[in-house]
Amino acid sequence: MKILRFRWRGKDWWGRLSEDRVLGLPGVTDFGDLPPEGLPLTEVRLLPPTVPTKIVAVGLNYRDHAQELGLDIPQEPLIFLKPPSALIGPEDRILLPPGVGRVDYEAELAVVIGKRARRISPEEAREHILGYTCFNDVTARDLQKKDGQWTRAKSFDTFAPLGPWIETELDPSCLRVRAYLNGEVVQNSSTDQLIFPVPQLVSFISQVMTLHPGDVIATGTPPGVGPLSPGDVIEIEVEGVGRLVNFVEFG
Amino acid sequence: MKILRFRWRGKDWWGRLSEDRVLGLPGVTDFGDLPPEGLPLTEVRLLPPTVPTKIVAVGLNYRDHAQELGLDIPQEPLIFLKPPSALIGPEDRILLPPGVGRVDYEAELAVVIGKRARRISPEEAREHILGYTCFNDVTARDLQKKDGQWTRAKSFDTFAPLGPWIETELDPSCLRVRAYLNGEVVQNSSTDQLIFPVPQLVSFISQVMTLHPGDVIATGTPPGVGPLSPGDVIEIEVEGVGRLVNFVEFG
Repeated sequence: MKILRFRWRGKDWWGRLSEDRVLGLPGVTDFGDLPPEGLPLTEVRLLPPTVPTKIVAVGLNYRDHAQELGLDIPQEPLIFLKPPSALIGPEDRILLPPGVGRVDYEAELAVVIGKRARRISPEEAREHILGYTCFNDVTARDLQKKDGQWTRAKSFDTFAPLGPWIETELDPSCLRVRAYLNGEVVQNSSTDQLIFPVPQLVSFISQVMTLHPGDVIATGTPPGVGPLSPGDVIEIEVEGVGRLVNFVEFG
Repeated sequence: MKILRFRWRGKDWWGRLSEDRVLGLPGVTDFGDLPPEGLPLTEVRLLPPTVPTKIVAVGLNYRDHAQELGLDIPQEPLIFLKPPSALIGPEDRILLPPGVGRVDYEAELAVVIGKRARRISPEEAREHILGYTCFNDVTARDLQKKDGQWTRAKSFDTFAPLGPWIETELDPSCLRVRAYLNGEVVQNSSTDQLIFPVPQLVSFISQVMTLHPGDVIATGTPPGVGPLSPGDVIEIEVEGVGRLVNFVEFG
């Protein structure tokens, strides 16, 4: 199932995608005046497909990216947080703030938590996962280097595009992850390159902090990250999910 | 006014402290069966006094702490995030996780946001602040050094004690901030030592990320941080607010 959130007639709704129609989500949506046959996807504005209490992200988690940077393979995941205030949805604009220098795209597979997880094993991870979506870990690269701590560089409003929906039926172990900049492939790898695969990551993070339903784990980016410029169209694609499209502006 | 949250008869309530009685908060509390004369403070369990969408904290923000560490005065605030899942309230237990090594207390003045803030000036900060409370930025010191990024070290469940209440009538520019470990003063400074005072901090962070009502900004810790052991009682005191008491256990 593809779970999504959308805005229609000034209200936010949970829904699911069926072919190219948006239907309510039984058991969650108060259907109200939503037509039973659903709405065409083109007639709704998609929102980030979850409302997380936190977004946990992982640094340097692709073997091929570590090779590209000439870095050792990490012994443990290196985690950081992005604030929920940075979230945007499909076709929203990524705003390049004044005076921050270079801002990069980073294509990532995102995990959405379905069931509270505290100190779970990798084997238990699957039952705590709702599904998967696309994430762009937008990063102000110059500030990241300057600060040492990554928080400011990764926390600007609009620096966490997520979507377009959550695919609940997916094996995350070997999925193609791509970024397209103005239609051209600029990142292209597979989750079989993950140093810490999804079950290990979820387990590791759950040893530190309780994960709540809706929380997002961004699993790291493959080689090929690069800068964004005003006017760019950046698309993140995860095989089996779809494509997350965002536009870039000064702002 | 002292705003607080409490649990009573299995429900969570917003309230305010009047002398040593807890009253409902007009305009917020559904009074239900809460007695109009309030409840004795000793009969309710206090909760963290806000439900933030994020906790933003600041590294090295006291002149005397920078001197203690022999470090240069930073040119800009160095910010990081702690997850809401780490929050605990007054008299809750700080749990020392297995295998993480040294875990330190860090006494801090916390700012609670009252009104959405995006790209505001230091002069505008005051009208976006609801009030002030005590915060303990509990930190797994060995992991902090090992990881480089501070997130894991500062994100364990129970590593964000906050409370006991939010004091709304307070000038934050010259307040004594103390930590007591088992009754003995171990940190003792004043917010007049802040390198980036409250209005500058709120303004700086609001340039990066939109601050929402209830969000917490922890303003940094003075000299004297040190390790916690099972059985310890750690108290954080902010002049004009009160004392936040927590107990330490393995867990």
